[in-house]
Amino acid sequence: MSKIRIGIVGYGNLGRGVELAVAANPDMELAAVFSRRDPASVKILAEGVPVCALADIESWKGKVDVMVLCGGSATDLPRQTPELAAMFNVVDSFDTHAKIPAHFAAVDAAARPAGTVGIISVGWDPGMFSLNRLYAECILPQGKDYTFWGRGVSQGHSDAIRRVKGVKDARQYTVPVEAAMDAVRSGSCPDLTTRQKHLRECWVVAEEGADLAAIENEIKTMPNYFADYDTTVNFISQEELDRDHKGIPHGGFVIRTGNTGANGETGHIIEYSLKLGSNPEFTSSVLVAYARAAFRLAQKGHCGAKTVFDVAPALLSPRDPADLRAHLL
Amino acid sequence: MSKIRIGIVGYGNLGRGVELAVAANPDMELAAVFSRRDPASVKILAEGVPVCALADIESWKGKVDVMVLCGGSATDLPRQTPELAAMFNVVDSFDTHAKIPAHFAAVDAAARPAGTVGIISVGWDPGMFSLNRLYAECILPQGKDYTFWGRGVSQGHSDAIRRVKGVKDARQYTVPVEAAMDAVRSGSCPDLTTRQKHLRECWVVAEEGADLAAIENEIKTMPNYFADYDTTVNFISQEELDRDHKGIPHGGFVIRTGNTGANGETGHIIEYSLKLGSNPEFTSSVLVAYARAAFRLAQKGHCGAKTVFDVAPALLSPRDPADLRAHLL
Repeated sequence: MSKIRIGIVGYGNLGRGVELAVAANPDMELAAVFSRRDPASVKILAEGVPVCALADIESWKGKVDVMVLCGGSATDLPRQTPELAAMFNVVDSFDTHAKIPAHFAAVDAAARPAGTVGIISVGWDPGMFSLNRLYAECILPQGKDYTFWGRGVSQGHSDAIRRVKGVKDARQYTVPVEAAMDAVRSGSCPDLTTRQKHLRECWVVAEEGADLAAIENEIKTMPNYFADYDTTVNFISQEELDRDHKGIPHGGFVIRTGNTGANGETGHIIEYSLKLGSNPEFTSSVLVAYARAAFRLAQKGHCGAKTVFDVAPALLSPRDPADLRAHLL
Repeated sequence: MSKIRIGIVGYGNLGRGVELAVAANPDMELAAVFSRRDPASVKILAEGVPVCALADIESWKGKVDVMVLCGGSATDLPRQTPELAAMFNVVDSFDTHAKIPAHFAAVDAAARPAGTVGIISVGWDPGMFSLNRLYAECILPQGKDYTFWGRGVSQGHSDAIRRVKGVKDARQYTVPVEAAMDAVRSGSCPDLTTRQKHLRECWVVAEEGADLAAIENEIKTMPNYFADYDTTVNFISQEELDRDHKGIPHGGFVIRTGNTGANGETGHIIEYSLKLGSNPEFTSSVLVAYARAAFRLAQKGHCGAKTVFDVAPALLSPRDPADLRAHLL
């Protein structure tokens, strides 16, 4: 059986994760990596796999089964996913929740005439968390779901701290509040404020002679990022930051409580949680599973934009349906 | 928009749960309940809904969109599901894991020529737990999954105790061992024996003058049911049993730990758990969500046997796909 030929577009943390995930799936092979950088400057792990200029990607039509797009949601994917969906089956991790409908429409418009499949917003949120919100709501329509994130590193919040005057480096953790999760699990369907759900924990390396009190104040009062949260600021050395905070862990919880019975007298709790050693490595592992599904959907003659909601779970697995029924059902 | 017309076949705990779940889903209506008992003797909750003899079910062809089969897996479903799939779209909760392939084949053989859809083995295990085993395995192929059941009532084990001489009534709880779950969550991929994973907790009402020591010994040494477990036996009065153990709670955990990275150096944990106030009410809520999917698959021209693995999640929801993308993704 021939392997599914995967292309990686963008070789940052996510692209490297996809490379590792492809190697972990024996029914796939890495065909090429595409980058906007000078290909000669991009060192990848796989031996014998070409690194190519993104500008030349069109010449790979017919030589790659699925392109896994590893760019950012702010500027890369809104342009790249529709462009590349006109030539290839694609999977992306577009994660700007509010802009998903527009992105879906753009990818759909490009993919349908091309006869390709584009699965967007794949990862864990959006992605596995979305699936769990959907399944739980369908099973327990009388109920309420809550999503908690963390404990994990927020890249956006870490960047925001690094822009504060006097800050040399920083790492920010989003931390779910245990008491809020316990209140949710009690089935009381609490209304929780932003402040009640998550804490923000900051580890900051200040420049020499910087005004630490001013830095702490500027972080804690920063609108949108920190002002609505209980935030702690810890100053440490660069050595400590590099030693203790070099990973990119993340995770979280989707919890739905709901009721059944003639008078709603029976309570149920559905809970899904992730504890991820590396956010990009896990996200890329999800992307690669959905790349398999994109390939199969295209083989069956489907086309257009899809999300995790549209993909039957069996399509994600390298095992055949009879094997799945016999051993996993 | 016309509602999805649901029929219930078998009106025990599960059938009553389906009746409640249909009432909780505004896009559905209960068309009829079918029973092997004298219809006049079957009291249902819904007003104005006919209770009919199972023998007359064929006359309902075209008047019910999906039959939800609520019989037992031992003798009812192996016969009923194929028989009824030849006339109706059907959903069942067949849960004899080892016999799923044969059941699937029988339902498929009946449904294909009839142009109907039969979704089998729907519930939480098989069902939601199976889905979580599948998703987690596809995302983390280098890993291992574990299923723990409980704390919850095992009907089969309770029945086994009631067959012991001198026992008047009994209730058995399956209890997962916390230490085993913690070992799994540590990522050490332990090999766990039957005894290490679950405890069995028995609440027994003895007949007057019965030999309690003999009862306890017979329970604890019963092959298949208890001999391989650490079992506790507690004797209580009928009043206490009725007061403290009248519910049918259940639940459990599916946990997969896996690794990514060039040398498997990054650990991840995916965990799904259910805490169910009522096993049959939850199972029937899952059945009803899949009844919606069965109806839609049939409308799209699909036919044959399916499992939860074959059903795209969006088909379970009353919301339209654009709404789901905008609000749940």
